[in-house]
Amino acid sequence: MYVGKKVTRVDAYDKVIGRTKYTDDLCDKSAYIAQVLHSTIAHGRVVSIDTSEAEKIPGVVKVFTCFDLKEKHYFPTAGHPWSTDPGHQDVADRLVLTEEVRFYGDDIAAVVAEDEVAAAQAVRAIKVEYEEYPFVLDVQEAMKDGAPQLHEKYPNNILKHTTIRKGNYEEAIKEPGLTKVEGWYETPTVQHCHIENFICYAEMEGDRITVVASTQIPHIVRRVVGQALGIGWGRVRIIKPYIGGGFGNKQDILYEPLCAWLCMQLGGHLVKLDIPREDTFVSNRVRHSIRNHIISWVRPDGTYAARKLEAFSDQGAYASHGHSIVAKGAGAFPQLYPCDHVEVDAYTVFTNKSVAGAMRGYGIPQAMWAVECHTEDVAAKMGMDSLEFRRKNLMPVGYTDPFSKNELYSDTFNQCLDKAMEAIDYERKFKEYQNQTGDIRRGIGMSVFWYNTAVWPISLETSSCRMVLNQDGSLQVQLGETEIGQGADTAYSQMTADVLGVPLESVHVVSCQDTDVTPFGTGAYASRQTYTAGFAIRQTAMLLRERILKYAHELTRMPPYNLDITDGNIVRTTDGRELMTLGELATEALYSLTNSQHLSAESTSQIKSNAYSFGCTMAEVEVDIPMCRVKLLDIVNVHDAGKLINPALAEAQVHGGMSMGIGFGMSERLMFDPKTGRALNNNLLDYKLSTFMDHPRLKALFVENPEPTSAFGTKALGEPPTCSVAPAIRNAVYQATGVGVNEAPVNPHNLFRRFTEEGIF
Amino acid sequence: MYVGKKVTRVDAYDKVIGRTKYTDDLCDKSAYIAQVLHSTIAHGRVVSIDTSEAEKIPGVVKVFTCFDLKEKHYFPTAGHPWSTDPGHQDVADRLVLTEEVRFYGDDIAAVVAEDEVAAAQAVRAIKVEYEEYPFVLDVQEAMKDGAPQLHEKYPNNILKHTTIRKGNYEEAIKEPGLTKVEGWYETPTVQHCHIENFICYAEMEGDRITVVASTQIPHIVRRVVGQALGIGWGRVRIIKPYIGGGFGNKQDILYEPLCAWLCMQLGGHLVKLDIPREDTFVSNRVRHSIRNHIISWVRPDGTYAARKLEAFSDQGAYASHGHSIVAKGAGAFPQLYPCDHVEVDAYTVFTNKSVAGAMRGYGIPQAMWAVECHTEDVAAKMGMDSLEFRRKNLMPVGYTDPFSKNELYSDTFNQCLDKAMEAIDYERKFKEYQNQTGDIRRGIGMSVFWYNTAVWPISLETSSCRMVLNQDGSLQVQLGETEIGQGADTAYSQMTADVLGVPLESVHVVSCQDTDVTPFGTGAYASRQTYTAGFAIRQTAMLLRERILKYAHELTRMPPYNLDITDGNIVRTTDGRELMTLGELATEALYSLTNSQHLSAESTSQIKSNAYSFGCTMAEVEVDIPMCRVKLLDIVNVHDAGKLINPALAEAQVHGGMSMGIGFGMSERLMFDPKTGRALNNNLLDYKLSTFMDHPRLKALFVENPEPTSAFGTKALGEPPTCSVAPAIRNAVYQATGVGVNEAPVNPHNLFRRFTEEGIF
Repeated sequence: MYVGKKVTRVDAYDKVIGRTKYTDDLCDKSAYIAQVLHSTIAHGRVVSIDTSEAEKIPGVVKVFTCFDLKEKHYFPTAGHPWSTDPGHQDVADRLVLTEEVRFYGDDIAAVVAEDEVAAAQAVRAIKVEYEEYPFVLDVQEAMKDGAPQLHEKYPNNILKHTTIRKGNYEEAIKEPGLTKVEGWYETPTVQHCHIENFICYAEMEGDRITVVASTQIPHIVRRVVGQALGIGWGRVRIIKPYIGGGFGNKQDILYEPLCAWLCMQLGGHLVKLDIPREDTFVSNRVRHSIRNHIISWVRPDGTYAARKLEAFSDQGAYASHGHSIVAKGAGAFPQLYPCDHVEVDAYTVFTNKSVAGAMRGYGIPQAMWAVECHTEDVAAKMGMDSLEFRRKNLMPVGYTDPFSKNELYSDTFNQCLDKAMEAIDYERKFKEYQNQTGDIRRGIGMSVFWYNTAVWPISLETSSCRMVLNQDGSLQVQLGETEIGQGADTAYSQMTADVLGVPLESVHVVSCQDTDVTPFGTGAYASRQTYTAGFAIRQTAMLLRERILKYAHELTRMPPYNLDITDGNIVRTTDGRELMTLGELATEALYSLTNSQHLSAESTSQIKSNAYSFGCTMAEVEVDIPMCRVKLLDIVNVHDAGKLINPALAEAQVHGGMSMGIGFGMSERLMFDPKTGRALNNNLLDYKLSTFMDHPRLKALFVENPEPTSAFGTKALGEPPTCSVAPAIRNAVYQATGVGVNEAPVNPHNLFRRFTEEGIF
Repeated sequence: MYVGKKVTRVDAYDKVIGRTKYTDDLCDKSAYIAQVLHSTIAHGRVVSIDTSEAEKIPGVVKVFTCFDLKEKHYFPTAGHPWSTDPGHQDVADRLVLTEEVRFYGDDIAAVVAEDEVAAAQAVRAIKVEYEEYPFVLDVQEAMKDGAPQLHEKYPNNILKHTTIRKGNYEEAIKEPGLTKVEGWYETPTVQHCHIENFICYAEMEGDRITVVASTQIPHIVRRVVGQALGIGWGRVRIIKPYIGGGFGNKQDILYEPLCAWLCMQLGGHLVKLDIPREDTFVSNRVRHSIRNHIISWVRPDGTYAARKLEAFSDQGAYASHGHSIVAKGAGAFPQLYPCDHVEVDAYTVFTNKSVAGAMRGYGIPQAMWAVECHTEDVAAKMGMDSLEFRRKNLMPVGYTDPFSKNELYSDTFNQCLDKAMEAIDYERKFKEYQNQTGDIRRGIGMSVFWYNTAVWPISLETSSCRMVLNQDGSLQVQLGETEIGQGADTAYSQMTADVLGVPLESVHVVSCQDTDVTPFGTGAYASRQTYTAGFAIRQTAMLLRERILKYAHELTRMPPYNLDITDGNIVRTTDGRELMTLGELATEALYSLTNSQHLSAESTSQIKSNAYSFGCTMAEVEVDIPMCRVKLLDIVNVHDAGKLINPALAEAQVHGGMSMGIGFGMSERLMFDPKTGRALNNNLLDYKLSTFMDHPRLKALFVENPEPTSAFGTKALGEPPTCSVAPAIRNAVYQATGVGVNEAPVNPHNLFRRFTEEGIF
């Protein structure tokens, strides 16, 4: 059995020696080079564009402007499964190029040239005349009457406002003896900063268009490119090679439609669009900055009487994933610490800033920042130990969410907390760090989290798989569920090998998706890959196994129920005799003059379940108060992602997520010039991306309670590691200094403000 | 309905504008360049190879010699389906590089360099020391005791000798009143001369190797590369892009194994091997030169009493397709003109010459040369009209071959002959050209032919197909049966559209085979593509249709038997109402929250039938006797290939075959230096390839008797057009001059010899 083992990544060797092919490696050198001209105002209208100087530059093939769009096909960009219900479709508010400018960096023209230099020169040579409008950058300012309006359809810039009402909050808070704890908690705009920037290229074959793209979601990109071009989706072919990270940014349709459109304008000539890092920060997607307002009413015994959350999610200029991010976070609020009387109001609001989309955690890191900072504040105000307070109030075993039907099957929160405590030596340190004085103080803090796996029942969960047996008993596995660096192909290989009964090296997962031939699957997001693909793999492998044993029955005359496949051999279960190798069977099946069969199997698995993932972070910090500097001394994440398919890859996944959480909590923030709306630090020098140098040794531990709804007992692990890191760090600083920094990140800038406010200098 | 219509090729636009990608277009520029060092002796042993000078040349990566082969994995090269019966497997007599030299041009070393120039310099700088053996170039000389032996296992160089014995020849010839007609008929060594020379490149991914090759038979190449490298066949991935012709040369495994081996020696680095034209003539494959000896015993009434054929097929140095070529021709002998008493002896014999393999017609052009020249000779000797003689003796309606079970279902021979006569104005010209004198004379001649479709029951016939429905109701079709320029993809599209009931433009045949994901099919040979793929397409489309209608039933609640698909719509057959488009159904199926189905179908169709194709050529020539020059004035081919899938493509196919037949009959011959064994005219200047300039307008006509065994009524047309052209020209020259040229081609050289022998100058 391979599931549960630390097998080496199937793509390790090629990645280590540099042989793995990414999009740019595959693009023919004859490609035209496209570059995008972005607006230099935050809000307004393009009045005219003068391309004459740009077109004179040698090597420029053509300059396209927003005025060249003959047909306006608005398209959505969220990497969600399609819905045939218009009410459930994503907002289609984008055009490949726009006359209406809604943020500093909007796409108004594009140059196609024979090389990068000519393209860059031409972009600079284009002259644009704008009509400027006032703009708004703050999420709550944007909601006010009279604020600049971004989209006509959305008064007060509110893309969506949803509410949760449980019990009777107004009545409940009248209970005598309650303590009211109130706070505002805000998260920064951050960017995914995957190593490989978004890149794609497009080319036509006949009247069809092929786009090779660095994406997490090839089958969804196909649909959206079809929508954006106004052509049948079957005329679009998307190919996804290996990618250098995505983290949700590539769960959005980025520039595939523009690249495809440019290609079609040029008669199908190969066009490449390689987005530079500076544009990646501004004109790709960012994480929603969410401002949360929480009021808790706490009884003297430390239980909640009533709770209220208002969340204001900064969408930026276009809808992208829109409200679903804050909705996911807001939905977590009544579940993590259940309470009889709850009011939740979540708003997603347009501002004239870079567009927010999916990013690892999908609203939960923001929600956990708010909830777990607040939990710490509540415990402090109540004079209670925050760990005990959590244990008392956390979702109890047996808790079931009425909407998702997700259930907490085991005492996982306590198991995770216990394991984290042991790993970080919590009790000793917690005591040691009481009542410190002096400039340098230490603290230890924690945060829990909760995360859904996959998107059912909000959206469709479906995954198809195809397996093809080779003559040597090896097989190819095709899935629409994508390898994006997380190791999915390795997990799929392990699963397939186990279900089919073949050696791991016999399984070749076809890593590169090609929507023309790859079975449908919506791709990598919502931490769904091992969970969702697991069903499709198990079902398809069982189907293939059945066909193999049926053929084995024909060859051996043994009844199928006395036959099995073990380690690549057809085995008679009654006495364990190896009757033939799978390779011998496959060869005979293929070349039989009597009954030739190319043994393969394909099936669609629709998933109508979901699963909670859980975990916690504990962090230890040292705060240099005069310098307003925090040093992270120790950190541990403990996860219950059910059964681990591959503990080594699971650990790697957690390390990456922790790193991202550390940046989110301690240093990263994309800033915008209040005077112009221009991003100020859209580069890796000024944007303080968390790196290896900023980390202590990252400890990743696991509690494995197999998920009963899952094909392999597994559930979400891709996004969870980033969910609870930042509040744990904040709470450690709080323990060290008594100062809670409610606006992430806990960087010197925010600490200086807070220390000044609290007067502890 | 599209089948039967002259629809435009699906790949026409891209081919016309030059966008179609061939192997070299796809190869990354970082590829190392490999070149092969060929032996400069015809027979012997490599004693030593000095690579020191070659290795000093800048840019040379490595020089590999036959002595670098650590493990000797002998492999066959014939593009036949594999057989699990060792007795039916092709002869495995090749190594990627050989110490034993068996022809002038054998592969003894290879250079890998960073560019072509360095590679070419290095090849020239290699010094080889040989031990030379005597060699033999003539097929009958090679059979003699004491002749140089090429392969130890085959005494007298006879690869195989097969016999057919029917009735009692020795007794039958004793019948009184018989006329004995005897002749020797010989065909030249010719080469396929496809526009795109063989090219391939190889690269490793993990421990697997990918070879992209200009081949007709990707799935077979996969197997042979596996054999040649001694690795599991599943570790090999073959990709076949569009190719610039193959004609059977690329139904052989050419240099894929060597390229793959070189790549593996270099740790998987990308290696490209692009064979130059000169090597293509020598070290690829050629058409078997076959020497035939026929004796016919004819009754006064013009019927055959007994017949005898001896055929000596010149195999060249290695087995390749070996005996199957002459066996196919020899097998035609008793069938075309049935006779109660027949003796056939067919020999395939090794000589120290270029290796003969498959070439369009696969032995039948050679057999028809012999049989149809001989038929003309018999009629002449009997003083009978050769047309009437043929009509009298040809296979009668109802004739059934006991082995293949092929049956002549209709009076097709007479239909074809009648149509040809009318097209070329035969009767008038035939009379006009009687009893000419003078230097310039005209003549008209004819030949019939017979051709099997596909390879059952000699070998396996199996073909798998996969169809995948897109959201817009379009679909992809995947097949192992390949587009090699003949228009197969267009025919497949027509077939699919008809069976499924969708518009032609909704069908996207995935043209490029990738053995990792393409369903198994053995590829393009034996004129099997439309016949064999037809079964797989019909079966799979019916399966997909059933699934679609089942889903339509779920959506509409109409019983499936009252539903149909017409022009891309789900139609209620009872009243003809269009209930929904196929696109609406597919979209609903895919995205349904109730029952999500990625509608696809895949199936293997094993074919246990075969079919005769028939036809004839009539040709009109003008002979300049003093100049020994023949001018082809008019030519017509009439074919019965059953139902034509696409008459325009059928006509194009016939034009190409006729051109090849004209070259074979009039000008082409690869010659070998008797002193060294070296090919003398292995280039397109000295090898007189028939071109457009040499042709009159090529007339292609059809008789369509739908083939009852066939899924679409179609049968062989790929190879037939080349089968009867050469003897028709020869017979026209015979009518014009009274001189029969029995050794093709009918070029000035052979005419001079024959005119001299016959004393007609």
